[in-house]
Amino acid sequence: MALKDRRLAEVVVGVGRDAGRLETARALGAVDVYETDPAPGLKGADLVVLATPIGRILEDLRTLAPFLSPEALVTDVGSTKGEIARAGAGAVGPRFVGGHPLAGSERSGVEAASAELFIEAVWAVTPTPGTDPEALARVRALAQGVGARVLTLDPDAHDRAVAVTSHLPHVLAYALSAQAATAAADDPHLYDLAAGSFASATRVAASPPDLWRDVALTNRQALADALRAYRAELDTMLAALDAADSERLFDRFQAGNDAKRRSGT
Amino acid sequence: MALKDRRLAEVVVGVGRDAGRLETARALGAVDVYETDPAPGLKGADLVVLATPIGRILEDLRTLAPFLSPEALVTDVGSTKGEIARAGAGAVGPRFVGGHPLAGSERSGVEAASAELFIEAVWAVTPTPGTDPEALARVRALAQGVGARVLTLDPDAHDRAVAVTSHLPHVLAYALSAQAATAAADDPHLYDLAAGSFASATRVAASPPDLWRDVALTNRQALADALRAYRAELDTMLAALDAADSERLFDRFQAGNDAKRRSGT
Repeated sequence: MALKDRRLAEVVVGVGRDAGRLETARALGAVDVYETDPAPGLKGADLVVLATPIGRILEDLRTLAPFLSPEALVTDVGSTKGEIARAGAGAVGPRFVGGHPLAGSERSGVEAASAELFIEAVWAVTPTPGTDPEALARVRALAQGVGARVLTLDPDAHDRAVAVTSHLPHVLAYALSAQAATAAADDPHLYDLAAGSFASATRVAASPPDLWRDVALTNRQALADALRAYRAELDTMLAALDAADSERLFDRFQAGNDAKRRSGT
Repeated sequence: MALKDRRLAEVVVGVGRDAGRLETARALGAVDVYETDPAPGLKGADLVVLATPIGRILEDLRTLAPFLSPEALVTDVGSTKGEIARAGAGAVGPRFVGGHPLAGSERSGVEAASAELFIEAVWAVTPTPGTDPEALARVRALAQGVGARVLTLDPDAHDRAVAVTSHLPHVLAYALSAQAATAAADDPHLYDLAAGSFASATRVAASPPDLWRDVALTNRQALADALRAYRAELDTMLAALDAADSERLFDRFQAGNDAKRRSGT
């Protein structure tokens, strides 16, 4: 939608499994034409953007390679990059360049699409030592073309950072939402007593669980490390609470408050 | 501000420590007059609303009682109700009725005030068996008068519910914000890779830490119980992650996703 809006592509071909949803995408102006068969869908494409849950990206990288033109670039928009970078290098070679636009919301489906989505968003582009420099330049230009700020970095460094800034927040939201449902089973007023802080803390629990399972599983080590560090922080707060240690509790809340102010988020 | 906007009070007297901030409140139309000395401030008041951090509410309940007219009602807007209900009953008697409007944000100070804040918000009112029924009716009318939906419930039942729906989300936000600052010390790109999910998950870490320390300490047992249940949920997810147990991980994410959809939050 953003490419068409800015006339950055001659033809956008939607390739997917579900003709009904592809027709909606066409009607909404996100694609010019569509195919449910990848062979004609990929024929003659200059640039292929894989935009499915990560498990499917990994599968597609292997199965789609035979259908690509020799000059085709391939990129993706998955939320983890290390495993995808290795799979892309193996199946596609130097003309695969992974990417991750930090945009979107808990909503999914083409009905949630917006041509303005990427404006001012960070778009991480994650080449490896084997990536073709021209392919990298074109993927960077694609991201800049739709209004994003490009950040080029190592795939594994990307994954370690987003484990803390994105994957952990999703896990925390799912956990709080599940816990509240258990508490609500015993208390009919529970959700009446949920206001802004609960809504914010659980907002991304509305995100598709299959998509986030794939994210978690392809960033297992970094996410587990982040979860362990988080649990240690909670344990410190819990110990302060159990001991009614006012100073220690204030110190931890203050640390979070200072960090929030300095973070610019 | 809401009372004045709806002409529900003849005179609103602001009582506080800082004349400069009280003058700002007057200039913004939140109070008609103000006093830094509680004796003249409370003189002749029909209704006294305690709206300070909880530690201070508990202190004021004890020290202000001698200055109250015999017919004065006292209420408060603190986020925990059990300890305040006991202190109010002891110091003020049957004409104390605790309350908790579930409104507001991470912003503080009179500059963040709005006369529309309470519209459609839930306002919990928490009488005890000793509360004067007429005092209860008047505090309920006050809340309804500024546009809130009143929920009357037991102070301790209130505290158990908001431990999950409000106090836990604040603790989780402070913890994530503090953890990210530690990670950012080793990674200059960390906050560049923070998008919507991080912003939502840490939004209320901008809330005043002294205020939330008081909340936590006056709802210690219920919050510790909620934190332990939350840690158990995280441990289940972490074990699934360590074991690369895709089904179990999906099951937990799905539980959070289902709950979010059904919660209406």
